[in-house]
Amino acid sequence: MNNSEPHPVVHVEYPDWVDSIVDWTRTYASDEDRMRLAIAVSRANVESGTGGPFGAAIFEAQSGRLVAVGMNSVVRLSNCTLHGEMMAFMMAQQRVGSFTLNTPGLPAHDLYTSCEPCAMCLGATLWSGVQRLVYGAGREDASLLDFEEGPVFPESYHYLEERGIKIVRNVLRDEARAVLELYRANSGRIYNG
Amino acid sequence: MNNSEPHPVVHVEYPDWVDSIVDWTRTYASDEDRMRLAIAVSRANVESGTGGPFGAAIFEAQSGRLVAVGMNSVVRLSNCTLHGEMMAFMMAQQRVGSFTLNTPGLPAHDLYTSCEPCAMCLGATLWSGVQRLVYGAGREDASLLDFEEGPVFPESYHYLEERGIKIVRNVLRDEARAVLELYRANSGRIYNG
Repeated sequence: MNNSEPHPVVHVEYPDWVDSIVDWTRTYASDEDRMRLAIAVSRANVESGTGGPFGAAIFEAQSGRLVAVGMNSVVRLSNCTLHGEMMAFMMAQQRVGSFTLNTPGLPAHDLYTSCEPCAMCLGATLWSGVQRLVYGAGREDASLLDFEEGPVFPESYHYLEERGIKIVRNVLRDEARAVLELYRANSGRIYNG
Repeated sequence: MNNSEPHPVVHVEYPDWVDSIVDWTRTYASDEDRMRLAIAVSRANVESGTGGPFGAAIFEAQSGRLVAVGMNSVVRLSNCTLHGEMMAFMMAQQRVGSFTLNTPGLPAHDLYTSCEPCAMCLGATLWSGVQRLVYGAGREDASLLDFEEGPVFPESYHYLEERGIKIVRNVLRDEARAVLELYRANSGRIYNG
């Protein structure tokens, strides 16, 4: 390490394949439609070798318009914070130009994530301004791969619910879990071992 | 929102004042020396109007060499994830070129933060690879300003400790708290109200 080098700048960008997987022009009507996209992103991330088996997407709740996606980019961008949900929050907030998705003048936004969030992402969900958190596979599915969720407890969810965030579990769970299994079959890197 | 616009790219950078506050060339021997820097960063962030009253720094544990600082940049960069600790993790990992600071060939790294971490940052602390988490002011100090820590419980700390992370509390707490009070006196924006 050389202390005279310039300060680092972190650039958070999508991988090249994003437009081949994500249709930005359509609307996504149902929870299943929206989750299917989050899972497709998780699968593309594994198949392209760009990261862990986790994908997320943020939609306008009423219109079903897609605002941002996120894919696990921890290894690709050498950054422990870049889980799929975190990238989705960052990209959505950059796009709307606000540090919260819950602000006057903006429609309600919901997060869809292919797997139950870790402690970091659950905390960020509270700060993000989304009104619903919808997940596919559960922490027990992720644990089978030795991915760890960190200090998340039942009270953690109660805390969010008391602040008005709705939690919806196990949407297309089998499809989401299949991507975790694909990753394991490929001997993917477990970066939070 | 126009779905034909280019994809967002998030750039995470230090504010301009960083080199006027941070001496990158010296080493920082004691916990107090290191915390004093984190607090100086928090104070400069308030005095410069670049963000909330929270600063952090990551050091090589043995040498006392400074690796990165972080300052709350939520409003400045329109990004709910950019708490001081998160920025410090991102910058440190960018600098060492690894998604974890705990990897063969790297010395041990410790995090110093001017205030007790929120749920997101505590989760990220686990993923970051730091071996000690040292904080100044406590959550009760932050709560006086209506800053919220989110779903953090005593078990959350036990979880980190069981995984080998040492927690050190209340280092230069009064100095850290004084910056929170300065922010309140300035009617600073409480962005997680």
